[in-house]
Amino acid sequence: MDADGGWAIEGLPDPGQIFAELRELTADNQGVTRAAYMPAETAALELIAAIAERHRLEVSRDQAANLIVTLQGQDPLAPCILVGSHLDSVPSGGNYDGAAGVIAGLLCLIRFRLLGKAPPVTVKLIGLRAEESPWFDTACLGSRALFGELALDLSRTHRATGRTLREHLESVGADIGPIAAGHRLQLNNEIAGYYELHIEQGPVMIERAVPVAIVSGIRGILRLPAIKCTGEEGHSGAVPRELRRDAASAVVTLLHRMDELWLKTIDQREDLVITSGVLSTNPNHHSPSRIAGEVTFSLDVRSLELTILERVQKFLSEQIKTIERERGVTFTSGTEYLTPPEAMDARMRSHLARTADRCGIATIEMPSGSGHDAMVFARNKIPSAMIFVRNQNGSHNPLETMEMPDFLLALELLYQALANKPD
Amino acid sequence: MDADGGWAIEGLPDPGQIFAELRELTADNQGVTRAAYMPAETAALELIAAIAERHRLEVSRDQAANLIVTLQGQDPLAPCILVGSHLDSVPSGGNYDGAAGVIAGLLCLIRFRLLGKAPPVTVKLIGLRAEESPWFDTACLGSRALFGELALDLSRTHRATGRTLREHLESVGADIGPIAAGHRLQLNNEIAGYYELHIEQGPVMIERAVPVAIVSGIRGILRLPAIKCTGEEGHSGAVPRELRRDAASAVVTLLHRMDELWLKTIDQREDLVITSGVLSTNPNHHSPSRIAGEVTFSLDVRSLELTILERVQKFLSEQIKTIERERGVTFTSGTEYLTPPEAMDARMRSHLARTADRCGIATIEMPSGSGHDAMVFARNKIPSAMIFVRNQNGSHNPLETMEMPDFLLALELLYQALANKPD
Repeated sequence: MDADGGWAIEGLPDPGQIFAELRELTADNQGVTRAAYMPAETAALELIAAIAERHRLEVSRDQAANLIVTLQGQDPLAPCILVGSHLDSVPSGGNYDGAAGVIAGLLCLIRFRLLGKAPPVTVKLIGLRAEESPWFDTACLGSRALFGELALDLSRTHRATGRTLREHLESVGADIGPIAAGHRLQLNNEIAGYYELHIEQGPVMIERAVPVAIVSGIRGILRLPAIKCTGEEGHSGAVPRELRRDAASAVVTLLHRMDELWLKTIDQREDLVITSGVLSTNPNHHSPSRIAGEVTFSLDVRSLELTILERVQKFLSEQIKTIERERGVTFTSGTEYLTPPEAMDARMRSHLARTADRCGIATIEMPSGSGHDAMVFARNKIPSAMIFVRNQNGSHNPLETMEMPDFLLALELLYQALANKPD
Repeated sequence: MDADGGWAIEGLPDPGQIFAELRELTADNQGVTRAAYMPAETAALELIAAIAERHRLEVSRDQAANLIVTLQGQDPLAPCILVGSHLDSVPSGGNYDGAAGVIAGLLCLIRFRLLGKAPPVTVKLIGLRAEESPWFDTACLGSRALFGELALDLSRTHRATGRTLREHLESVGADIGPIAAGHRLQLNNEIAGYYELHIEQGPVMIERAVPVAIVSGIRGILRLPAIKCTGEEGHSGAVPRELRRDAASAVVTLLHRMDELWLKTIDQREDLVITSGVLSTNPNHHSPSRIAGEVTFSLDVRSLELTILERVQKFLSEQIKTIERERGVTFTSGTEYLTPPEAMDARMRSHLARTADRCGIATIEMPSGSGHDAMVFARNKIPSAMIFVRNQNGSHNPLETMEMPDFLLALELLYQALANKPD
């Protein structure tokens, strides 16, 4: 345990001040907009870089134009620890989603520097770009670039500019050759692990009154964005039940059965969430006096366990067949995406839990329901761990609110985890 | 039984020819459009009037500008029988909805005339206007005018012209004074009953392979065109079930419980249909990865029994309260309309059934799921009965198809019912 007096350190920048500067730099009408591979995101990287340089930290960019800030460890040849998150935001998003993790990493490095201490191994802060999916309709571009995963995405176009990902990468100085070739990029060090601090994007920590959480894993996603059910239109009064092919009623039955499965699954203490966020009869045809001939709906199913997602997938396709037979309708599933869950590294999680205990920081362990760069690191076999900070009003909106005392507790946990070797 | 040789009568107009002339007169791009109180509807009335006059039938208009064709009965002082239907159509509708009943009445009168026979009591054909609801957003204006029911509707505006119902009534020669005063209009005779022949608007007769049906009653309607369920938006992955206020899931649960009630009700051989024809998450906010904060949906509930509609209404409001509690959502029911069902007259129904038996016409008895002018007559204490003719492809669309042999069977039943006194 490093009892060096906490965050009341002469010369340490005020965290609230950094967040305020970042907000001012990237404000839009309502919240902040830091579009992937565009000037506001670059300005955010530069703000972090400038503060790092002011504290004589070594600043560079990786081949994908992400920000790297390096602090040598006591053993400079040992594999390094990465710490960070992303600096882009969704359109009209909040100031904390992503930025909290980068600023946390920065403050940890500055604390080491101001105290004249070296962490056990080299720590690199990574300020990633382009984690949010709205810009190129796919997520985690900055981290995926590191692992050679962008080769097939370079012709995607940017929501705001219409220009390709390739052009945008080049415009911020990325080295497009190895990215286009699908090569794993070089960070000059072997990576021992990745820590990401992030605001919670749901209400669990608020509800349970806990400021800091350790993430057990990132839920995988089975997503069907547009399932279509086709039945037959008919007069609402003149067609008896047994002669109906009612698309709305068929979809209600399907979603009810999905809900029953969900209840049964969580009763058995298994991890699952199911959402049908889009649900609509055809607005060009529907009427209160007309049996619906067509309904389109989405399904978003998430779990920490791939086997559970596969079980739900099987149940869905069985129920679709059953309801097609029962109701005389047809379902067209459309595109179907399956992103496997990623467990966070057991050793790093237990290091975080022990460190929190020693610091007297109460934590819970909980899943992350949304994707993060940590998912990309984990699936590329980099041991990864995440710390959640309590946050009000969800994320991806201007109202997200992380209280500074909560942030400082999570920051302390992160710093102590970096400062002390795992048992 | 009147064995006068059926419809092969010298001089009788060909029914198919009348339908063809009417179609040609009122055709639009796809089907027919005979807008209420407008020239195409008037042209339809004039076509029927011209054929009637050609057969020396007495033609007039009532005070609401509906067509009246009179044939004196053997007992001219006895209360008369009305027979008819409406001559307007929905926009781009089919040629048979309404017109079939008017042409059937006309052919009955012509048959009497050509055979030189008088029916037992005076028969008046009524060619009603404005039965379809799209034009003034309310139905059965022509028949409701007869009973002083239009006084409060005169400032409604016409969908196609923007002009008021009052102006439209005046433009076709209606006597606006008594209509505006809410007086019952005079038909110069007491009315003993009203017969309406109409195409079936559902698939029951096709399914059961029966060309002619006797209507048991007209279903009442409980309609809630826009119920709104408000919950709370949230991240599809990050909010566990117990912390959700998912509007889509709440509505699915409600509609599923309505469906269970429906199944239970028809299992007990009680008459009920339930339709949710409009169902939609908010298109300005919804996303596959966002828990729905708002869903709007319609309910259309129909039954031959008012007590069943009231039972469903009570169940709905109980379930809304339960689900509000269970799911943390709120429902706003919006406008709610209750139109009571109207039974068809028992004596007239049994006269039709006996007449069909004597003619060797196989019939079934079935409810009408849609409203008709007969509903207005029945609720104003005029004994009423309806004959349905088999029809393909539903109604209110250009594809509705009534086969002439089916029409002739129904026509024979109507004629024999008029020609013979009830037992």
